[in-house]
Parts: sequence; C-alpha cells; structure tokens
Amino acid sequence: MVDLNAELKVLSDAELSLIHRYWQAANYLSVGQIYLLDNPLLKIPLTRDHVKPRLLGHWGTTPGLNFIYVHMNRIINARDENVLYVCGPGHGGPGMVANTYLEGVYSEVYPDVSETEAGLEKLFRQFSFPGGIPSHAAPETPGSIHEGGELGYAILHAFGAVFDNPDLVAACVVGDGEAETGPLSGSWQSIKFLNPARDGAVLPILHLNGYKIANPTVLGRMDDADIAKIFSGYGYWPIFVCGEDPQLMHQAMAAALDKAFDEIAGIRKSARAGQASSVRWPMIVLRSPKGWTGPREVDGKKVEGFWRSHQVPLSNVRGNADHLQQLETWMRSYRPSELFDGNGQLIEELRALAPKGDKRMGAIPVANGGQLRKELVMPDYRALAVDIASPGAVEAESTRVMGYLLREVARLNAETANFRLFGPDETASNRLDAVFDVTERAWMEKCEPYDVHLGPDGRVMEVLSEHCCQGWLEGYLLSGRHGLFSCYEAFIHIVDSMFNQHAKWLKVSRELEWRAPISSLNYLLTSHVWRQDHNGFSHQDPGFVDLVANKKADIVRIYLPPDANTLLWVTDHCLRTYDRINVIVAGKQPAPQWLAMDAAVEHCEAGAGIWDWAGTAKGNEPDVVMACAGDVPTMETLAAVDILRRELPDLAIRVVNVVDLMTLQPDTEHPHGLPKQQFDALFTNDKPVIFAYHGYPYLIHRLTYARTNHANMHVRGFKEEGTTTTPFDMAVMNELDRYHLALEAIRRVPGLADKAGHVVQQLHDKLAEHHRYTREYGEDMPEITGWRWPYPA
Amino acid sequence: MVDLNAELKVLSDAELSLIHRYWQAANYLSVGQIYLLDNPLLKIPLTRDHVKPRLLGHWGTTPGLNFIYVHMNRIINARDENVLYVCGPGHGGPGMVANTYLEGVYSEVYPDVSETEAGLEKLFRQFSFPGGIPSHAAPETPGSIHEGGELGYAILHAFGAVFDNPDLVAACVVGDGEAETGPLSGSWQSIKFLNPARDGAVLPILHLNGYKIANPTVLGRMDDADIAKIFSGYGYWPIFVCGEDPQLMHQAMAAALDKAFDEIAGIRKSARAGQASSVRWPMIVLRSPKGWTGPREVDGKKVEGFWRSHQVPLSNVRGNADHLQQLETWMRSYRPSELFDGNGQLIEELRALAPKGDKRMGAIPVANGGQLRKELVMPDYRALAVDIASPGAVEAESTRVMGYLLREVARLNAETANFRLFGPDETASNRLDAVFDVTERAWMEKCEPYDVHLGPDGRVMEVLSEHCCQGWLEGYLLSGRHGLFSCYEAFIHIVDSMFNQHAKWLKVSRELEWRAPISSLNYLLTSHVWRQDHNGFSHQDPGFVDLVANKKADIVRIYLPPDANTLLWVTDHCLRTYDRINVIVAGKQPAPQWLAMDAAVEHCEAGAGIWDWAGTAKGNEPDVVMACAGDVPTMETLAAVDILRRELPDLAIRVVNVVDLMTLQPDTEHPHGLPKQQFDALFTNDKPVIFAYHGYPYLIHRLTYARTNHANMHVRGFKEEGTTTTPFDMAVMNELDRYHLALEAIRRVPGLADKAGHVVQQLHDKLAEHHRYTREYGEDMPEITGWRWPYPA
Repeated sequence: MVDLNAELKVLSDAELSLIHRYWQAANYLSVGQIYLLDNPLLKIPLTRDHVKPRLLGHWGTTPGLNFIYVHMNRIINARDENVLYVCGPGHGGPGMVANTYLEGVYSEVYPDVSETEAGLEKLFRQFSFPGGIPSHAAPETPGSIHEGGELGYAILHAFGAVFDNPDLVAACVVGDGEAETGPLSGSWQSIKFLNPARDGAVLPILHLNGYKIANPTVLGRMDDADIAKIFSGYGYWPIFVCGEDPQLMHQAMAAALDKAFDEIAGIRKSARAGQASSVRWPMIVLRSPKGWTGPREVDGKKVEGFWRSHQVPLSNVRGNADHLQQLETWMRSYRPSELFDGNGQLIEELRALAPKGDKRMGAIPVANGGQLRKELVMPDYRALAVDIASPGAVEAESTRVMGYLLREVARLNAETANFRLFGPDETASNRLDAVFDVTERAWMEKCEPYDVHLGPDGRVMEVLSEHCCQGWLEGYLLSGRHGLFSCYEAFIHIVDSMFNQHAKWLKVSRELEWRAPISSLNYLLTSHVWRQDHNGFSHQDPGFVDLVANKKADIVRIYLPPDANTLLWVTDHCLRTYDRINVIVAGKQPAPQWLAMDAAVEHCEAGAGIWDWAGTAKGNEPDVVMACAGDVPTMETLAAVDILRRELPDLAIRVVNVVDLMTLQPDTEHPHGLPKQQFDALFTNDKPVIFAYHGYPYLIHRLTYARTNHANMHVRGFKEEGTTTTPFDMAVMNELDRYHLALEAIRRVPGLADKAGHVVQQLHDKLAEHHRYTREYGEDMPEITGWRWPYPA
Repeated sequence: MVDLNAELKVLSDAELSLIHRYWQAANYLSVGQIYLLDNPLLKIPLTRDHVKPRLLGHWGTTPGLNFIYVHMNRIINARDENVLYVCGPGHGGPGMVANTYLEGVYSEVYPDVSETEAGLEKLFRQFSFPGGIPSHAAPETPGSIHEGGELGYAILHAFGAVFDNPDLVAACVVGDGEAETGPLSGSWQSIKFLNPARDGAVLPILHLNGYKIANPTVLGRMDDADIAKIFSGYGYWPIFVCGEDPQLMHQAMAAALDKAFDEIAGIRKSARAGQASSVRWPMIVLRSPKGWTGPREVDGKKVEGFWRSHQVPLSNVRGNADHLQQLETWMRSYRPSELFDGNGQLIEELRALAPKGDKRMGAIPVANGGQLRKELVMPDYRALAVDIASPGAVEAESTRVMGYLLREVARLNAETANFRLFGPDETASNRLDAVFDVTERAWMEKCEPYDVHLGPDGRVMEVLSEHCCQGWLEGYLLSGRHGLFSCYEAFIHIVDSMFNQHAKWLKVSRELEWRAPISSLNYLLTSHVWRQDHNGFSHQDPGFVDLVANKKADIVRIYLPPDANTLLWVTDHCLRTYDRINVIVAGKQPAPQWLAMDAAVEHCEAGAGIWDWAGTAKGNEPDVVMACAGDVPTMETLAAVDILRRELPDLAIRVVNVVDLMTLQPDTEHPHGLPKQQFDALFTNDKPVIFAYHGYPYLIHRLTYARTNHANMHVRGFKEEGTTTTPFDMAVMNELDRYHLALEAIRRVPGLADKAGHVVQQLHDKLAEHHRYTREYGEDMPEITGWRWPYPA
C-alpha cells in the first residue's frame, strides 16, 4: 500500500482544477442524459417540460466511473500509454457515453450527435429513449468491449484483451456489487496466466462505492486491512484511494495511478529483459461515495453515499416541484456555462485534456477488434484426413485428428500470436494433445522439473473454471484474435449465461456498421453424454444446443460431425467464420470412420445428405428413413441398418445423416435451413423417419415441426437416463441403441411388424442378453464392441 | 496459524495406530472398489480374473478424503459433535462409500452389501459397474447431500445445511481443482451471512493435493503465506496441515481439528451468550500428496504426488503383469488381514473408532433431510386475494401481493425457523418487500444507523451472486427446510448448470426408497423480459424454462400466472410440494387483474381453461382461438380481443389462458399434460390458434407438436429483439402486441382478411402511430397505458 494520507501534491493547482472541471463536465452530461429532453445547456430555467417523462438510468456508479476516466486520460497523455477502459458496472452507461462524447469520438462515430447545442440535446434525448441507445454500456458505446449488464466478467474480458497485446493496459473497473459474483471472484487468479514478457497488463480498479440496489456490499463494509490481505494473497499490490473530498481524491488518484503505471512499466521492463522475478501486479482500490456529487438527501432520506442513489435519485421531477428544483441545483452545481461554450462545445482548455486520435479510450482500435483482426493462416485440412478405404473400415478418435489440425493452426500462426486454445484442464483429456507438439499450457506459477507441457510461453489456457475460459476467449476475440474453447459437453452449461450475453453482443454489433466483424466463438463439446459412462449422470447433459438454438439464426451454428474427416471440415470452416457462435459436438473415443475426405467435404457442404452406400433403397423411395445426427447415433443407426439388412433384406432403407443441425429448419427461419423441396427429398413426404439424435429429442421436433413429413418423425435421443455403466448401456437406457432403433423401424413401417415377428423377438432377446452380460462382466458384449460395418463401399 | 512444526502429541501411540489402521482400511476398500471383482480379502494371490475389465474411478483425491473422514470420526466421538461431511471432490466416491461401509451405515441402507466377505465382494463389484453405483459421491451415497460431479458448490451446500441448524458442523472438503471455479471462489463470503447465535458452523477443509486431471492447481502451487492472506482476508483463520509422513500428519490433523473445534465452540458460546465479537472462523488447509499411499511410479513415471494418480494409477492390470503385481503389492501394503477378520468384518478394535448411531456421518439425519422436514404452516392465501369486481377492473402488482403471502409464511414459521427467502439484492426491487415487515436481510458485517432492514437475525438471504443464492437454497432444502429464490428472469441462466445438477439429484433420489422427499426448489422469475424495457437487451431472456422443460417430467413444473390471484394460488401450491422444481414467472409492474379468487382457484387447478367472459364464441365453436400464457401476453391478447370485438363483432373468438405450461404436453409425456380430448376441447381440431406466449415461441411448438390442431398453432413470443425502450414497444418489436395479434387473427381466419381490410389498415396505422409517438415523447401512447378491459363480467 502507498500511504495516501501523506500530503500528496502530484497535480499542480492548475492541473487539478482542469481535471476537476473535466470530471464535472462528464458528470453534467451524465445527469443530462438521464433527465433532459431539452434545454441541454440550462440556458433557461429548468421546467418540467425539459424533463423526460420516463427516467431510466443509473446515477450511482457514474461519478466514480467518470472520475476514473479523467484520471486515465491524464495518464495516457503523460505516458503515451494505450489504455482500454473496461467498465464492469455497465449501469454506468451515461458516464461512458459522456466521456467518449467529451473526447470527440462519439460525434465521429455518430455524426448526428455533434459537438453543438443541438448535438447535446440529441445526446441527452437518445439515452434510454425509444429509437435511441440503451441505458448500459453496450455495443453501441464506442470504446467498449464489455456490456456489463450481467455482472461478473469484467476482469476476464480485460485479461482476454491484453493477452498477446504487449503494449496494452486494460483499466478494468470492478464494482463492489459485481465483486460478489462467483465468476468475478474466480477471475482474480487470471494473473497466474498472464506473462508480462508477451502480454499486456490489467490494472483492476476495485470501485467500492459501498452499495448495490438495496444493500451494502460485502467488500464495501470490510476493513481495508482485510481487503488488502485478500488481494495481496492473490498476487496483487493494492493501492487504496479513499475519500470524498474531490480535491484530495484527485491528488490521491493521480498519485495512485502514477505508482501503478510505474510498477507496470517496471514489471514489463524486467520481464522483457528476461529477468525472472516474482511479479506482484498493482491494483487500485477506490472507495468513493455512491452517487458522488449528487443530491445528499431527497425527501429527507439519505441518497449520496447510500444505495438510494443507485438509479435515479430524484424520481418525480415532473410531478414534484422540489425535485425539479433539486435537479436544477444539482446540474448547475457543475457550472455548465463554464464547461461548454454557447454553442454547446466543450471549452478549449478542457478539450485539451483528452488524449488524441487512437489514444482516446473511445477510439482505441482494440475495442473494435474486428478492425485489427488478421485472418488465420490455415493449413490444408485435407492433408490430415483419415484414410478410409471403405466406410466403417477403420477406427479413429475424432478429436485426436482435430488436434492435428489445431496443432497446425497453432504452428502457422505462432508468429502472429493471434490464436489460443481454452479449456478447463481438459485439452489432453479431450485428446487435443497434439497441440503440445508446438506449444504448452500457459502457467506463471512455479514449475517443477516433472511438469509436462507447462510454462509461461504456452498458448493453451487451462484453468478449472469454465467462466475463465469463456471470458478470456470472449476478450481475446473482441480484441481481434481467434480461438476455440474445448469443454466437457455437460459442463458448458456453466457458461450458459455468458453464451447468451455474447450472442446478444454479436446480434447488436452486427447491426452497427462501424463495428468490424470479429472471429466466431468456437466451441468443441466433447466427452459427451454418450461417452460419459464412466463419470455418470452428473456428467451427462446434451442440452446446451437447445439454448443455442434460441438465439438469432444469423448468429448460431450447430455441427454434429459423425466422424473425423467431417470434423476436420467443420473445424476448418468454423475457424474461418466471423460474428458467429459455432458449436461442434464430437466424441473423443475410438469410433468407426465413415467418409473419405472428398465425400466428407461434399456431405458437410450440403449439411445433410443421403448415405446411399449405407441404405438399401438406393435411388428409390424407401420404406423407412433411418436418420441420424451425432457420432454415436450415427454408429447405432448404421448398426441397426446392418441388422435390418441382414434380417429383412427386402426392406428399402434410406440413411440420412445430418451434420449441420440448422439444415433441419425451414430456410425461412435459418440461413442454413434446407428449402422445402430439398428437405422433402431427404425425408420423404410420408415415410416413417426414425431419427437418432445426439441430444434431447425435442429439439428435432422443434426444428422440423413445420416440415411436410413431421408427423412421421420418431425421434430418439437422450431422455435423462444415465449413470456409471458401459457405453452401449447408456444408449440402451435411452433407447437410442441399434436394437431399439431397429425395433422402432419395424414398428413404424406399415405392416412390417406382422411379418417380422421373429426379428422383433430376436431384438428383444439381444436386449435381455446385453442386460445380463453387462451386469455379469461389467463390459459390453464382444458383438457390440467388435461390431464393424460389414459392407463394401 | 498454529505452528504444526512444533512437536505435536495429541494422539497417544495406541490412538495413532488405530486411526492409521482405520485409514488403511478405508484406503484398502477404496482401491478394492476401483479394481476388484473378486478375492476381496486377497486370501489368495491376485490374478487378472479378479480384476474388473473396465477400470473406472478416481484414486487421486480418495486417500485425502479418507484421512479427513477418520479424523472427523475421532472428533465426533471425543466431543459428541454432529458433523455433516460435504465432499466437494465427488470423484472420491470410493472413499465416501468405503467409510460409510466401515461405520456400518452402508450395510444398514443396502443390506445386500453386508459386513461379510460376500458383502465386501458385492461392495467392490457394484462400484462403477452396470446395475451398480456411480463412480461419484451421489444420491446413492449415504450421508451425502452433495454430488460433486460438477464442481463449485460444496461450500454453498455446507452453508445452506447449517443455516438454522445451530448444533451442526459441516466439514466441507474443497479440492484445489474446485477452488479454481468461480462459484467456489465466490462462496467464501458465505460467512458474512452466517450468524453463530442461531446457525451451525462450516469448517472448510481446503485440500491442496496439488493437481487436477493434467495440471497443477493454482492454489496448490502458491505459497502458504499467500494462501493464509487470502483466507484471513475473507475472515477465516487458516490452520495448515502439510506433509506426507502419515504419522506426523495424523498428529498434525488431530491437533488442527482440536484447535478448530475449540474455536467453533468458543464462537458459539460467546455468540449465544449475546457477546458480540468480531468472528474469525477456523478452516483447515490440508496439503497432502495426490494419490497418497498409492504407487509412487508406474512405468517409470511419477504417479503419487502428481496428476497421473488422478484416476486409475495402474491402468492395464489385466494386460500387464507388472501392473497386476504392483496392484497386489499396493493393496497388501494396507495389511488387509490385520484389518478384517476371515469373514470380512472389520476387526472389533477398529469398529470401535466409528461414532455410534446417528452420529455416524453416513447416518446423520440432516443428510437425508426429508426425514427432518416439517410441513410449512401455511396462511390462508384467499384472505390476501385482490378484490376483483369484474375482470380487468383493477390493477395490482402481482409480486407485491405474493409478498404478502411470503410475509405470512415467514411469520407463521418464524419459530420453527425453517423458511428463508433467497435473492441477489432484489427482494425489494422484485416488490416482495412485505416480508420486511416480519424479518430482515441477513448480514453479519458492520451495520450503519441508516441501514434498512439489515441485521444478523434476518431470514432474507441477499448477496449479489445467483450461485450463492441457489447453492445455499439447495443446501437448505436438502437438509429438510423450505425456501424460495426470487431472481431477475434473464439472470437465472447464471445457475442453469446448478439447476441441472439439482434436477438430476432429485431424479435419482426419488428412485431411492430410503431417501425421504425434500421440499421443492421454488423459483420466482420476475423483472421479466417484457418489463426490462429500462435495462435493455442484456436483461431480456426468457429461456430458462426451455432448459427446465428438458428435465424429467416428474421433477419440473412451469407456471405462468396471469395475475395476482392466480399467483397466490400457484405460490401456495408450490410451497406445499416436494421433490420438484417449480418455476413461477410473474411480473412486478402494475397490471390489470382478471380473476376473482374463486375463479383463479378453478382456473389454476385446471391448469388451462377457456375464459368465456373474454371471448365472443361463448359455448360455441369459435372462428379463432386467442391463446395466451404469461401476464403480458395475456394482457395483449385481451387488448387484441377488445379490438376484434369492436371492429369485427361477428367474429367468434375463444380466449384460452394457460397457467400451467405442462398442460400443453400430452398426458403420456407429463403428469400435468391434458388428455387429448380435453386439449382438443380447448384448442379445437381445426381452427386457427393465435398463441401469445411469454418466452421463445419454439417451446410451445415443442410441447404441442403431437396435438391434433398443431398445424394451426401460430405462436408469438420473444424473438430476441430488444433494447431500452418503452414496455409496449418491447411487445411491438417482437410482434406480440395487441395490434400484431389482431392482425394475425385476421390473417389466419379463412376469408376474413378480405372482409376486414379496413381493420388491417387501421392496425397498421396504429403501429405507425405508436412508432412516431414513442420516438417523440419517450413513453407509450395514453391509449396503451390507459387501456382497460371495457366489458363487464
């Protein structure tokens, strides 16, 4: 800690006065946005007609955010730093807008919000107004990569942005409300993965204004000494700036930031000179009143320095003359006529305080990362293809083959340093370990001689926190780079809400012309439900894609490649896309391989197709369609077809495989949706379809309910039955296995059940035999594990 | 910290020897479960045929868990404590099973796994075996309230269990892998909400064995000094037990636990004597080798004390004679013949070490909380009904009325102390603040004179962490109490994965006769998508129910009460149920009230019904069905009906309202599903249905795809369009508003569009007028906000 009680005199009186007035300007514009429709410069006395009918917005956090902003401006100018402002309290939207307006960026991005009186009026009016801008920092806010509506991810986004950005400092404001969330609490450990030799720095600014919506905050009520212990234990060096007298606080904040940036410079210097040293990163703990400089009391109740200042301190300005008077007094306390000229422009001496050009935090290119994005250099995935003489002839572990592709991507882009892999301690478990041929796991703590693929230069980010993986990757993508998150399928639900928020960010940013496209967020979901027989029910959940399918069709893609070569195509494709969220579900266990590379390409490009070689209908109308999506369902479907072909050779079977799940939707609903004719050509108009699907069966119904033949679609999938058992028993428990699929086909083809009674009996016998065998021997029958597709291509 | 380097001699030599041998017995049984099918006492030399064909399970964490268990046994006996063992590393399933077997509980619960050689063989065989038990601590494990498959929630469950259980200590083991997760990191603050005067104690045991699946852990590689700072900052008093020599470690652990329980006793005593003092709770930091006492090296590679011991240290026992030999050596190192008699029973002097009866951690009643559960005393909700002379005649805030009910529940059950409310700082914001008439928010940090409804005796648990709210509530319910979690609808996704895991727990525990039913987990989702016009897009997401609908029909219920009286019935109903997850979605804003109490009861009991008073078809077959689910969709539907009644008086309209969403599914799919005839009687066989639904429209299609009239169902819902705007504009953006609904009805009734061209034009004009008006004035048109249902009952 620095002793900020000592008399500090970092700023000259003149500097201090300018900084204070700039802060007042930001505060004035913030209040104006929340309240005013008109009379933006208060040239005339305020009347109720100047005030918005609905008062929406959050004042409480805003003056603190503005305070930090102006002090960061000073640092940027003084030290020529590149600073990204990550605003955790997204509620402080008015402050972010105010500051980017003051520095001129806002009017450059939105020319109609000009630096004039009319522009000011527009700035005020548009805020939280129909057809205007949202109340939070959002994609619409220049300089932002962080929404902050749902709290918890500020630090993670900041770290993601500074990885491989050695000259960047992310000044990350964390509210004391947000600091109570789990994801934020778990994100302090991010420094254990940040290498000052190659990465930038995050300067956390823990803003303790003491209150949430209607409660004190935990950290806000704790002693400085305890707070210092926590963060010092995590590896930070906390500098406290505490108080409410603006004059003293300006000096203290300036001194604290000088100290922090000195420290960052020192850490960088020694790290880049190759000097290993135990790093302790600076952070700021800022204690300032909630609703600082706003009304102290309203209607006799404490407001400034209390939670009542959280939203709109004066709530009835139109209806209550006292409130109106208080608002005017409050706004005039900032002396607008001394801040803006008669035309509404910030006066020159204050304008001079803002950094210039791209140094302005609203204009820093990394906050519009698509501008900086370089395409990945991609290897030829065909060169990595599994050699498949005939369908089902060989086995391979799909994700292991994908690992070879990722290794090549890592190798080819190592110098550009714009590609990382993220995962919760599962890269090797998920069999992507080929990447360790060319890189390691990032790790800044101690290493032992017996450690494996671990070190400060690694580009694989592993931490047992799906939140960290997701948040870091989002920050990395938003700042213009590329990546992939591999995860156990069941536990990706841990970041459902983060996925939601990122999808929302993409949806809005795609509508903003000035935001350049960013790389897609790619998920590999593996160790999936059908191969979690060893870890049991808690590890079995394929429902993430259901959530994904709720989002805007332009944003989301879901791929279920049935084997390694299709997975290669899908991975290559996803890594080339932008502004999307691609979900790839693929297994890691040895499994039969179906398609040679050319066939895989053709199949994946179509998204879904008939596997003529597998069925017996060939070009003709089938008696039954055996459809499948997902690797295990595909194998079980083909095994079922094998049974049917042997036992009922006259049955005309068509096999349809779906790689791109969105092909199932009508093309009016999703850009990948198959047109009606194409869909009907696959699934027929009226034949029974036995659809073996990887996840919860409802999703297939939901995607296909408007299709011609929907009434004949009989979907099997995960029906929430599971435990620790054998792999095949998992399929049996959910009636997705070859025997149940064959039984269903026989049941659904009109008239067939009567003729095939002996087959039905045989299948039931097989199920009983499976049951007995597994419970006696603890493994699947040899005829299951040894089954191979017996037909030549 | 206590100095554990000092020579410690808490245990006599004889005690130490017994404890060590008991530990060896637990370790032996753990290894046996992972490996053996037969020869459980190693009476004959081990052969490959004694070994399971598939080796599933996790050794690494297990010896540490066993070590903690035996030492807790000592404490329980020595101090007559009631200890609940919460096993964060659920991977250590073999250890939990071994210990509950050693203390006799397992054989009492599962008599076929007896304390005989045959029972031992069964114990070994069943583990991770088809038809047997899962590899993790699970509902099947006696003494457990915690699965631990998905990591992060151990501390939260422990706190939930000890709230209002003043004599209970939850010994909560947190693995250093789990400690990296966000939710776990955020759960250390739980002590800020634990009142030693009325609550029990949590003794966290942070188990640093240093490794995850394939990585060191962050905390495992950190210095003791830094770890001490972190936890000391959070308010704990960490006691370190570090080493690998079992003899020294036994003494150290015994001393540490003595110290910890002395501290807990002291805290309790002074708190219950009314002496306020700054509380610092003890915790244990246990550093012991991963895979302790297992093979040091396998195939020349480090295993003990490294991540290679995570799962099965010897992986090819059947195929590799060296592995087989190593396994036998390892198992014999525990000297089984000195632990068990020839009949397989634990020898008497070791049996004596286990606590007796309900003191055994496997038998502690709180871990089968349904046994302890007392029904809530419920008030008469009818007495709180909103008086409704005629539908739409009055407005009310639904959740405020629900708050009155919750207040009465809190009041009536205050003495029993078995009901709490949970929420992230939103109880007042969600307008449930009537509860503050009878209780406060729980808070153990400093209070200020100006704080509002805050104090150590509060029964409303508010922390800005949905994870904490959910985890505490789960622990509270699993230990036999009642509660409700109120949350902003969008942010409940933060705990999607916790919901999943709890649903899985309930599904399995319902299948276990010995597990008594527990109270349902009740959610109130409010501040919902249609009334987040002020906070914007990030706060708008109604997708949680889609996730819920994936779970087993026996477990989940979804209610969308359209007004306050239906909400009263639903709340009363949910609080009376057990072993379910009830999701209630209801708004907090003033809104028209439709049903008087008697009508509300009748409607809710049916789950869905025709509102004859609203339609024009009366008893007859309608031209169109206007269906609705959710409060805002109901209001918009009735407003659309109002328009249609005025403009097209000959149109026969039927209004159907759905409260219980699961009525839409066939009764073969869900116990609340309406039988075909009843469903068809509501929705007709062939008439157009305009269905205004609260959430994503797909869910309605998914639930109804098999219904007779599904092809005519036209669903409007949230289509992911939103921002900060007016409430009505939110509906318009998603085409769920009265104008769009009326237009859709006109479009879908055959022949009507031709006749009603003027109405269509008028509706389009209204939409344009709305657009202009809101963008000019920033609020909804008076005819929208002032609209009232104009017809008498």
